[in-house]
Amino acid sequence: MSEEFLKVARAAREAAAELAPLPRAAKDRALRAVADALVEHGKEIIEANAVDVDKAREGGTSEAMIDRLRLDEARIEAIAQAVRDIAELPDPVGEVVRGGTLPNGLELRQLRVPLGVIGIIYEGRPNVTVDGAALCLKSGNAVLLRGSSSAYSSNTALVRIMQEALEATEVPAGAVQLVPGLTRDSVKELMRARGLVDVLIPRGGASLINSVVEESTVPVIETGVGNCHVYVDADADLDLAVQILVNAKAQRPSVCNAAETFLVHVDVAERFLPMALAALSEAGVTVHGDERVAAHGGVVPATEDDYYAEYLSLDIAAAVVDSLEAAVAHIRKYGSGHTDAIVTRSQGAARRFVQRVDSAAVAVNASTRFTDGGEFGFGAEIGISTQKLHARGPMGLPELTSTKWVYTGEGHLRTSKGTVIPASGG
Amino acid sequence: MSEEFLKVARAAREAAAELAPLPRAAKDRALRAVADALVEHGKEIIEANAVDVDKAREGGTSEAMIDRLRLDEARIEAIAQAVRDIAELPDPVGEVVRGGTLPNGLELRQLRVPLGVIGIIYEGRPNVTVDGAALCLKSGNAVLLRGSSSAYSSNTALVRIMQEALEATEVPAGAVQLVPGLTRDSVKELMRARGLVDVLIPRGGASLINSVVEESTVPVIETGVGNCHVYVDADADLDLAVQILVNAKAQRPSVCNAAETFLVHVDVAERFLPMALAALSEAGVTVHGDERVAAHGGVVPATEDDYYAEYLSLDIAAAVVDSLEAAVAHIRKYGSGHTDAIVTRSQGAARRFVQRVDSAAVAVNASTRFTDGGEFGFGAEIGISTQKLHARGPMGLPELTSTKWVYTGEGHLRTSKGTVIPASGG
Repeated sequence: MSEEFLKVARAAREAAAELAPLPRAAKDRALRAVADALVEHGKEIIEANAVDVDKAREGGTSEAMIDRLRLDEARIEAIAQAVRDIAELPDPVGEVVRGGTLPNGLELRQLRVPLGVIGIIYEGRPNVTVDGAALCLKSGNAVLLRGSSSAYSSNTALVRIMQEALEATEVPAGAVQLVPGLTRDSVKELMRARGLVDVLIPRGGASLINSVVEESTVPVIETGVGNCHVYVDADADLDLAVQILVNAKAQRPSVCNAAETFLVHVDVAERFLPMALAALSEAGVTVHGDERVAAHGGVVPATEDDYYAEYLSLDIAAAVVDSLEAAVAHIRKYGSGHTDAIVTRSQGAARRFVQRVDSAAVAVNASTRFTDGGEFGFGAEIGISTQKLHARGPMGLPELTSTKWVYTGEGHLRTSKGTVIPASGG
Repeated sequence: MSEEFLKVARAAREAAAELAPLPRAAKDRALRAVADALVEHGKEIIEANAVDVDKAREGGTSEAMIDRLRLDEARIEAIAQAVRDIAELPDPVGEVVRGGTLPNGLELRQLRVPLGVIGIIYEGRPNVTVDGAALCLKSGNAVLLRGSSSAYSSNTALVRIMQEALEATEVPAGAVQLVPGLTRDSVKELMRARGLVDVLIPRGGASLINSVVEESTVPVIETGVGNCHVYVDADADLDLAVQILVNAKAQRPSVCNAAETFLVHVDVAERFLPMALAALSEAGVTVHGDERVAAHGGVVPATEDDYYAEYLSLDIAAAVVDSLEAAVAHIRKYGSGHTDAIVTRSQGAARRFVQRVDSAAVAVNASTRFTDGGEFGFGAEIGISTQKLHARGPMGLPELTSTKWVYTGEGHLRTSKGTVIPASGG
């Protein structure tokens, strides 16, 4: 590992030990100081951001991507406000998750504690730099940020301003670190930093996430790949089903909780498909359907790949299924375990679907778009986990913590005959 | 991957999907059938075990190790009883972890669900084969067992008898699988079976666990390496401290929650060390001490390695520290994050120690030996996690589950203006 990387990783580790026991008030004060500093130094941030924007334009980046990269006064104010909002959220650290007195008199508590050092590998927008840092600080964790090289100048300025703001607070400035370097080597170093980094959270497209999962020896929380399904059951209210389907697909097609495939039960396919295809067409959606769907016209024939696709665009795959069980099997085979919805009036069908679909979230008679930390009332979200260990679904502050068992006795000894408590020696 | 391995892994995966939605009663009936079958087929098991025992004896295995391998009627009865005990435990699956109605009327629940397919890689005693399988089944998971090659004949018989017993129950027999083959290749296949296996739990020594953690692309839960500390504070009741120390070290030195190092505050070292060294000596313990400890005689000089060591024997490392903070720093540097104890009468010292020691369990005025699923009231334990993600400390049935979010609406759509619920189409 490079000296440069080890330096920031060790600084984060030391800061994490100092940060972990800090009370909520100290962390909230630090977050407000960070928010103030970002607004105060807005001009510097915009200047640094201009370097990234110019480089992107020279490199021929699309205007849509450049817009995601660009910071202005209003966006910086919004970023600062998000930090203030995180300061208002309850502190997960110290929460007693379970606790009680054991039969032998030991007082046992399971407490929430910070994870330690969290690495975040992300693409695109520089707001993640601040948002990720604020979520980690609030949950008592130090953070190693490895953003997109296209935002390196912006991220460098943002991290420097956050660190300078922390200098005047009880939170150690070392708790927020930008991973140095622009090359893929720095991602590799993060992935190999077992013992220095406690968890890695990749935020971005499927290829970034897969490569981190494959190569990392640091534990990873997978986020965000969403091949979400809407299944229209034989007992569905078809009007509602059309509306849920169009909302799930078209309300915001670029996000992970947007629908990418719909499945319809054969018994209602003849009635549902003309309604659905007309509504989707009106919303500008291209349907990639199997033979039974394509028979209705205006449909692109689907290939196997379409069912695996996370389009993130105004495209949707479609198939007719012969039963609820066939829908579940399709979802288990092609899905990404993010969110899958059933539209049905049947309590039994809903129950079977919920029990058998193995995804982070299952929606019944609701759009898949509700799988979201904000909608769930978490106040903030670091991402949506599609893995089963540690955290599944939208991840808020508690998902950025671990737990610690604490037991308190008065000299409790364990013996082959049970607990013995010797008399105090005074 | 070998066809042989893929066959059992796919069978486990299919069985997991069938097993997940089964109600508790079906799983308990299956566990009782397994327990009965083990007792009924005791003779076959003992015969198969004799093959392993003979091979071990020919290979020059120590009598202590052979004793751990050996099965007789009483041990089989105890194994069967443990399965019956697991049937009596509450089912974690279906538990509502969090839930409520969102402001927009969506009913949101976070439910416990099985992880899916769990791989267990273990050494030593064949009872883990049955115990691991029973814990996985009870928590709705299929299991791939990869035991020690020294117990292969025993494990083959045990798995066959469990599968035959399951044939007559609602639990699919494929839910319990022995990973075929005796070589390290089969461990490698397990570690690379991402998508087929949801989590790997290595149970055994540090080298097994480290190699799995380093090489596995399947998420791993680390268990069991314990370099536990007893810190005797300046404000300790020294008589109690001696008893806690001797209990933590010597009551059962071969287990992961036994103490491997003690640290004593310099202010009480002169009084404490003569008492402690005498008591440890009487218990047959060899002390490996730093200069200040060794000054008291009867002490082997400690090297750096001693402080990292998990002796699992009647040896203990020892050092004098200048402050509670120095004790914490020592533990953070050399410890394994399992269990660390403080002996003190000071509330403030206990609080500082609990906040700053970053371990799965922290004991205050109690022996480290209490970090145990049985002692904590879990009823059963699959191991003690020393990692921070997913599960930390003793792992019972809930730690073998994930969660799933379910939300139920009446046609809820997400729009830029908030939730919209269209009128039902009837």
